[in-house]
Amino acid sequence: MIPIIYTCTLNTAIDLFMDVDSLHPSVVNRTNTEDYQPNGKTINVSIMLKRLGVNNTALGFIGGFTGKYIESELQKLGIITDFTEIEGITRVNAFVRAGDQEFKLVNKGPEISLDKKTELINKINKIPKGSLIVVSGSFPRGITDDIYEEIANVSKQNELRLVLDISSKKLLNCLRYHPYLVKPNREELASFFGKNEITDDELLELGKEIIKMGAQRVLVSLGEEGSLYISESEVVRVTTPQGKVINTACAGDALLASFLGKIVLGETIEEALRFASATGAATAFSMGLADLEDVPGLMKSINVYHITQPIN
Amino acid sequence: MIPIIYTCTLNTAIDLFMDVDSLHPSVVNRTNTEDYQPNGKTINVSIMLKRLGVNNTALGFIGGFTGKYIESELQKLGIITDFTEIEGITRVNAFVRAGDQEFKLVNKGPEISLDKKTELINKINKIPKGSLIVVSGSFPRGITDDIYEEIANVSKQNELRLVLDISSKKLLNCLRYHPYLVKPNREELASFFGKNEITDDELLELGKEIIKMGAQRVLVSLGEEGSLYISESEVVRVTTPQGKVINTACAGDALLASFLGKIVLGETIEEALRFASATGAATAFSMGLADLEDVPGLMKSINVYHITQPIN
Repeated sequence: MIPIIYTCTLNTAIDLFMDVDSLHPSVVNRTNTEDYQPNGKTINVSIMLKRLGVNNTALGFIGGFTGKYIESELQKLGIITDFTEIEGITRVNAFVRAGDQEFKLVNKGPEISLDKKTELINKINKIPKGSLIVVSGSFPRGITDDIYEEIANVSKQNELRLVLDISSKKLLNCLRYHPYLVKPNREELASFFGKNEITDDELLELGKEIIKMGAQRVLVSLGEEGSLYISESEVVRVTTPQGKVINTACAGDALLASFLGKIVLGETIEEALRFASATGAATAFSMGLADLEDVPGLMKSINVYHITQPIN
Repeated sequence: MIPIIYTCTLNTAIDLFMDVDSLHPSVVNRTNTEDYQPNGKTINVSIMLKRLGVNNTALGFIGGFTGKYIESELQKLGIITDFTEIEGITRVNAFVRAGDQEFKLVNKGPEISLDKKTELINKINKIPKGSLIVVSGSFPRGITDDIYEEIANVSKQNELRLVLDISSKKLLNCLRYHPYLVKPNREELASFFGKNEITDDELLELGKEIIKMGAQRVLVSLGEEGSLYISESEVVRVTTPQGKVINTACAGDALLASFLGKIVLGETIEEALRFASATGAATAFSMGLADLEDVPGLMKSINVYHITQPIN
């Protein structure tokens, strides 16, 4: 049976993309284009899973007219929603393309009350055993990053398969609850261990350290260098196709979602990794999440090989 | 009996106000504050009328989740809404305060189909005789500024009292339909007649020209210099209190709404002008539309005097 998948977005947002020829103070800058997109790393995971034909339920905090928009856009795509409605207005972030420059304005969004946090934890508490739950992205105002550990604890108690894609160092505190999968990128993996930069050797070493500390699997996304998968039983290195990068923002989310999607659909680790690498690349080569058209072609140029060095 | 008042906003918007210490390209600029306000010059008129205790109905085009927000915000204030729902998403404009600088990003918004334009005109066609209808602001994509003349024509046929506060030169084409009131500012009045700047003598002359061309009344807003009211029977000059100007964007809307509000409540032209000048100033001295607290104090320093020079 395919496990039920839940995604949990703590800090939802709508991204407002605008395009101007150039940006000047004081005067009115009239835009050429405008676009509104539901955002949040886990929202992207939900959308990509659905594109793969994997049903899933979106959890998280939403508020106001912008929150309602996110909910209805996901429902239109056939994603089940079970959001926790909060006071205040889910934020709109603004991204302004002005010729060669891009200006990114990221708002704080509404504050989450303790009551609402508890409401979300209670929802997670009721998820059926064996389900997969993906938690990623930043955390909103009003609560601390201790919420990640709280979710990890509930997941362990209820035998949920927890997937964590977070930048917070609190990730390390979550490992003792044996998350199913952890997906840092190179910078995040380095920062968890207080380092700015890491070599490829250290990458492997710190990935293994994550496993030793309790995670069942780790998938390190490496951008143009592909990805590295580590579990207790194997280490797999995956390359990625080269191409013109348009937008790296959603590539990690596409990689994670398509890896998980293929795994729950019964593919081997190797095939899931190959597919995920192609989907991540296709996303980096396009605006927003890639459709899956180019994926079969891109998969052909991807190498997947086992690193036989054992975990010490 | 107080005439029923309608406002008509062709190009609705939500204003997203953000505040950053400084704005830089490429990096993520995290904001200190965020605020969402329904916008449109006539939306401001509806809100200010309601603050004066004058019931009114808001017409215009709205679409999508942002349009729904405008509708629900006005309803919360007790304003009746009868919007024309269109395809697409009512725009979000972005205003970024970055230290001493302000960046204004104004979007185009959705395109209006001919069907939807007809639907709005039909709504106006059903407004009861003797009602007042206020049309102001810019016009959206998909239709031309001929819509102003169309509204003027329908207003004349149905004996509505049309108030026009528009920048388009098509205003001159509307005058033959005898609008109840026209409210240009100095720059608009100049531009209607193809001029860049005008002297105070020309101001009076061109104001009178508007009356000769068919308008029943003209109220020229002059910012710090107050306003000038002209009808067939009188010319009235009004001063305005001096103070620290914070935001001039809504001052003209506040002036217009409070003048109309006081007139329909039965005040004399002189008293309505004095009140309107104070409300306009109070708005210029604050963020957004002023509450009415400071208005009685400000009214004391306003001079209203008749210019006895007859209309030639």
